[in-house]
Amino acid sequence: MSGNTLGQLFKVTSFGESHGPAIGCVIDGVPPRIPLSSDDIQPYVDKRRTGQSKYTSARQEPDKVEILSGVFEGQTTGTPIGLMIANQDARSKDYGDIKDKFRPGHADYSYFQKYGIRDYRGGGRSSARETAMRVAAGAIARKILSEILDTPVNIRGAMVQMGPMGIERANWDWDAVDNNPFGCPDAAAVASWEAHLDEIRSQGSSTGAVIEIVAQGVPAGLGAPVFDRLDADIAKALMSIPAVKGVEIGAGFNAATLTGPQNADEMNIGEDGKVSFASNNSGGVLGGISSGQDIVARFAVKPTSSISIPQKSVNTWGENVEVATRGRHDPCVGIRAVPIGEAMIACVLADHLLRHKGQCGG
Amino acid sequence: MSGNTLGQLFKVTSFGESHGPAIGCVIDGVPPRIPLSSDDIQPYVDKRRTGQSKYTSARQEPDKVEILSGVFEGQTTGTPIGLMIANQDARSKDYGDIKDKFRPGHADYSYFQKYGIRDYRGGGRSSARETAMRVAAGAIARKILSEILDTPVNIRGAMVQMGPMGIERANWDWDAVDNNPFGCPDAAAVASWEAHLDEIRSQGSSTGAVIEIVAQGVPAGLGAPVFDRLDADIAKALMSIPAVKGVEIGAGFNAATLTGPQNADEMNIGEDGKVSFASNNSGGVLGGISSGQDIVARFAVKPTSSISIPQKSVNTWGENVEVATRGRHDPCVGIRAVPIGEAMIACVLADHLLRHKGQCGG
Amino acid sequence: MSGNTLGQLFKVTSFGESHGPAIGCVIDGVPPRIPLSSDDIQPYVDKRRTGQSKYTSARQEPDKVEILSGVFEGQTTGTPIGLMIANQDARSKDYGDIKDKFRPGHADYSYFQKYGIRDYRGGGRSSARETAMRVAAGAIARKILSEILDTPVNIRGAMVQMGPMGIERANWDWDAVDNNPFGCPDAAAVASWEAHLDEIRSQGSSTGAVIEIVAQGVPAGLGAPVFDRLDADIAKALMSIPAVKGVEIGAGFNAATLTGPQNADEMNIGEDGKVSFASNNSGGVLGGISSGQDIVARFAVKPTSSISIPQKSVNTWGENVEVATRGRHDPCVGIRAVPIGEAMIACVLADHLLRHKGQCGG
Amino acid sequence: MSGNTLGQLFKVTSFGESHGPAIGCVIDGVPPRIPLSSDDIQPYVDKRRTGQSKYTSARQEPDKVEILSGVFEGQTTGTPIGLMIANQDARSKDYGDIKDKFRPGHADYSYFQKYGIRDYRGGGRSSARETAMRVAAGAIARKILSEILDTPVNIRGAMVQMGPMGIERANWDWDAVDNNPFGCPDAAAVASWEAHLDEIRSQGSSTGAVIEIVAQGVPAGLGAPVFDRLDADIAKALMSIPAVKGVEIGAGFNAATLTGPQNADEMNIGEDGKVSFASNNSGGVLGGISSGQDIVARFAVKPTSSISIPQKSVNTWGENVEVATRGRHDPCVGIRAVPIGEAMIACVLADHLLRHKGQCGG
Repeated sequence: MSGNTLGQLFKVTSFGESHGPAIGCVIDGVPPRIPLSSDDIQPYVDKRRTGQSKYTSARQEPDKVEILSGVFEGQTTGTPIGLMIANQDARSKDYGDIKDKFRPGHADYSYFQKYGIRDYRGGGRSSARETAMRVAAGAIARKILSEILDTPVNIRGAMVQMGPMGIERANWDWDAVDNNPFGCPDAAAVASWEAHLDEIRSQGSSTGAVIEIVAQGVPAGLGAPVFDRLDADIAKALMSIPAVKGVEIGAGFNAATLTGPQNADEMNIGEDGKVSFASNNSGGVLGGISSGQDIVARFAVKPTSSISIPQKSVNTWGENVEVATRGRHDPCVGIRAVPIGEAMIACVLADHLLRHKGQCGG
Repeated sequence: MSGNTLGQLFKVTSFGESHGPAIGCVIDGVPPRIPLSSDDIQPYVDKRRTGQSKYTSARQEPDKVEILSGVFEGQTTGTPIGLMIANQDARSKDYGDIKDKFRPGHADYSYFQKYGIRDYRGGGRSSARETAMRVAAGAIARKILSEILDTPVNIRGAMVQMGPMGIERANWDWDAVDNNPFGCPDAAAVASWEAHLDEIRSQGSSTGAVIEIVAQGVPAGLGAPVFDRLDADIAKALMSIPAVKGVEIGAGFNAATLTGPQNADEMNIGEDGKVSFASNNSGGVLGGISSGQDIVARFAVKPTSSISIPQKSVNTWGENVEVATRGRHDPCVGIRAVPIGEAMIACVLADHLLRHKGQCGG
Repeated sequence: MSGNTLGQLFKVTSFGESHGPAIGCVIDGVPPRIPLSSDDIQPYVDKRRTGQSKYTSARQEPDKVEILSGVFEGQTTGTPIGLMIANQDARSKDYGDIKDKFRPGHADYSYFQKYGIRDYRGGGRSSARETAMRVAAGAIARKILSEILDTPVNIRGAMVQMGPMGIERANWDWDAVDNNPFGCPDAAAVASWEAHLDEIRSQGSSTGAVIEIVAQGVPAGLGAPVFDRLDADIAKALMSIPAVKGVEIGAGFNAATLTGPQNADEMNIGEDGKVSFASNNSGGVLGGISSGQDIVARFAVKPTSSISIPQKSVNTWGENVEVATRGRHDPCVGIRAVPIGEAMIACVLADHLLRHKGQCGG
Repeated sequence: MSGNTLGQLFKVTSFGESHGPAIGCVIDGVPPRIPLSSDDIQPYVDKRRTGQSKYTSARQEPDKVEILSGVFEGQTTGTPIGLMIANQDARSKDYGDIKDKFRPGHADYSYFQKYGIRDYRGGGRSSARETAMRVAAGAIARKILSEILDTPVNIRGAMVQMGPMGIERANWDWDAVDNNPFGCPDAAAVASWEAHLDEIRSQGSSTGAVIEIVAQGVPAGLGAPVFDRLDADIAKALMSIPAVKGVEIGAGFNAATLTGPQNADEMNIGEDGKVSFASNNSGGVLGGISSGQDIVARFAVKPTSSISIPQKSVNTWGENVEVATRGRHDPCVGIRAVPIGEAMIACVLADHLLRHKGQCGG
């Protein structure tokens, strides 16, 4: 109830602090006889971690995921899967300012208000390091989706806005996404994004971003009518990612500006007897239940508050202070949020798939 | 697990279809000895229901909430509170098109895909009628917040955008909200909003809207670090409202455009020893835990698809058809969403308050 | 979290006090398209209620179950089923002693310690009246089991001990169960049981009992390895029935006296390729998972404390008092516990069947 | 939902197989600022493990518990506590018969029926090895109880029956419990128990046992009225221990033989204003809520089926076979169940204490 579990049937329980002995999670409810090894998981964890460009600062450690249980002779057994990454970079060091000063916009202050104690080393539990476990869980969720469903579900993400810089939708190219440091799907935008982020970085500043996740191949019928709507669970899962401040499905906030006829996704049955939709303003969810269209969700990531520009704050003794983050920092944490967003969607879909099978047997 | 329960300690389980015998809910976990009568609940239900203007179409029935259990001699007993509203307007009638045609953008299609059966009368379970129970639960949540906390929590909502029409933030006046048919906080905007909505209505069309909810007086410390973040639970609760397509906290999607220094809410301790913040881009939540600032959330409501302009669709026999909604309809369903959004925030806050007391004893 | 919900996928949330306006429950997670009407439910509720003999005291009201939602044109829709029984016998009257005196062995005292308030009318929430809703939920659980499984599950109960009076196992006859006022499966024992209970009743005293529930036709594979074992969930469900003080599975407490070879249920494969067991000391559950043998569970019901023989107690003002229950009372509440025990087993089996389908797709 | 989590606010999620890389658990919901180190946990784990006599066979490894998260500078932080014991004795070896033969009375058969796969090495997930994590969680539960409550809660267990051998209740001496290999509280019975178990052991057989757990100092008010009764949750927790076949509270099954006046625990207020009870047939729970009396629960442990006497069974290919367990085995697994039973009671009490604080603020 202190909230470290996600999902009902595909159930991820996470633990671990940035500089404690390890981070890990337990995934309960995985169907049996699904082929699984750490090779299915590690690539996603690596994608999140990697300092593959000058814009992301990686910890100097391999982040090797170990499967501790639930897999036997290369297959899941139906029992809980324990995952762990040992923290190698957890040595004692001088945390200086961070130990006693609350960084504006950080969890430092609210954690201390709640618990009266906080593990300040590297952000403790509030460190984005815990998202490595989300990505690992997402990799297992993908395996479940691909094993249980006849048609493959393809879950991909891209950065569609960085600070004030947007994309041209007409230029969208999934192949472009992996060919730039931002996960930007518009190759024509990359150069100006680079120039912008170089400027931000040289100032010791940071910038926000918007990420879009698309899940193709999701069957109609996943979700529930009232509280546990598929889109509501997606909203929760995405909003739970550190630094996320907004979530939208399909047309999202833009739907507020539309009229009914503009927004309605007209339907048609083709000669093959298959239903098609004239548009996807719904983002693949109608009344909380998937429609068979692509699930499309976007989320806004705020600029990190860990910047080298000094800011006014307070400390644990109730004094006014200035605080600045020293050393490396990510000028755009949204870059790492792409695989995390994909993982969250995968987890929600796997959970709702199992729930649907439980109730409706589909 | 088919998803009709919200909350962990303040736990609302909802039931009921639009044209069945009744709608209702069970609220489990309410602390004992809280003064409660239907007079605490009915005004909120009335506010949601009322056709207080030409823009909202009310069912011709009183929507009288009955307390079936959990209250004794004017006080809660700690046992579950059963609430019910009998459906008077549930008589059999001709549902015509709706019975067999899927309205684009409606839950009709996805329900049928999921369950293979649907109660088409008035939308069945997907009818916005179920939100009457959310509002009733929210009223009880407000009572809990006010009884348990020393300082009152004030949860209010307003419509800040209708279709393309926005507000001037400098004109914000809470007193204005109840003096126009939209819940618009900017009195100067009302006339143009009226003209716009009259136009929409006369066309048989509809428009979307954005609602903002502000909760003042929420103590620091409510929430949880990873999955059950306060803002994540708010996002789920708001996204679970029918027709909602986007949710944001604090600066929300606009945070994506900001730099770190612009976004950080600098902190200061005054001579009274109290912490104040220079801004509230966080929307009152840091690292998933309330900071003591106002909780500020916004959500986008799509234009209803129940419009009299015919649209292309399909029917249950796999034929292409045209469908149009006859009779009354709301040109802007966002108008009714204001009290629902307030109620959802109240429910989430009451739940997290009890959870915080359970773990941290606060 | 105040504990009025049972089950994870077949989820029963109960509400109501003995003398409030109504008792009811919400059943969420029922698969769609299961034929259901109140005729499927009422007979079980009647069986629990009926004063079919001089040994059971019935309230003078019909206990008519209403289905408020979740059923459309005679079939479940997959949405929550609301059930309600209006309390007709809920008129205000003089509760005399009960209002302020704590009856020894009753929930009166512990409720007051927990909540600081209690609805003393007819026992309030602690009244066995709430079990009517368990029986109603159990009827729906039976429908699910029979619709989803190929072979019918047959869940039956019998009273195997009343006070010091036991049965001869060799005489077990299911047909005898409905032909005596006790649900005793040994016709030869009935006369002496009657004599014994007449004596108890004439003294204004009461007696305990042991009930045995047998579920035939449960497929192998339901349950879970560690905490949510099928037998653990059965133990919880049966122990949650008012007045139950002990639960056992298969050989139960007698297993403590056995040796390994005596206790082991040897297995054999017949020429038809089917596994058979030489005995059923396991009670149909191995390692928390059903084996395909009959599920056999027993539970002990204490003698009711509502007796006309005065007892020493205390009152709400901290004074020593004597208390005696006036008017009708049941000399052996175990008699009514038979259908309740059956219902609890049905609910647990339906829940684990859906859970199994969710994870293992069976 | 595959059932590896116990508790609602004090929430234990367990993972691990006997011969996988590690066993472990995550404990979520622990209040912050509770002093905790592995020294608080290890003694309980050692007590469960130790081959302190010829009657218990220990794995040759230290079972060292590591705290992976949730503790900072010797105090809990309110974040989840990850615990792990690395399996040193997990080397590959020849499992011979066990690999393909189902041992009668074992989980082998039902696991295979459920999952279609099983980790046969040392029993896999069904190994009693997972109970080490229950004992570790119980140690943390004890810390919570002692830190939050004013008066200490003392949770102790004893073996009160071994096979046909009982105790003399008048001889009960808690100090005797640690001075014999059985945890027997009746020093006078020990010699005959030893003779009996020597005989059983020399035969390659095994015997059942009954364990009694007493929790002193539990405040009145913990529990809930209907499904999540304190005794129902205790019943589930104890029944979930491997090899347990029966659970009872207070007078338990003996209550079935009593009359109302015999069973009622009369109450009295002394001159100090404190309520006392003339007896404790209720076992400290009235109407599902603790009364302030000692919580008294007993559970029956079956004789282990891992015996060297050959038994008839079947194998994975559907053939009739004989199976016998080679090497060491415990002639009375009940001996190790004493600390496990204590731990389960501690976990349930800690959970209900936090739940009570959440709802009632006590």
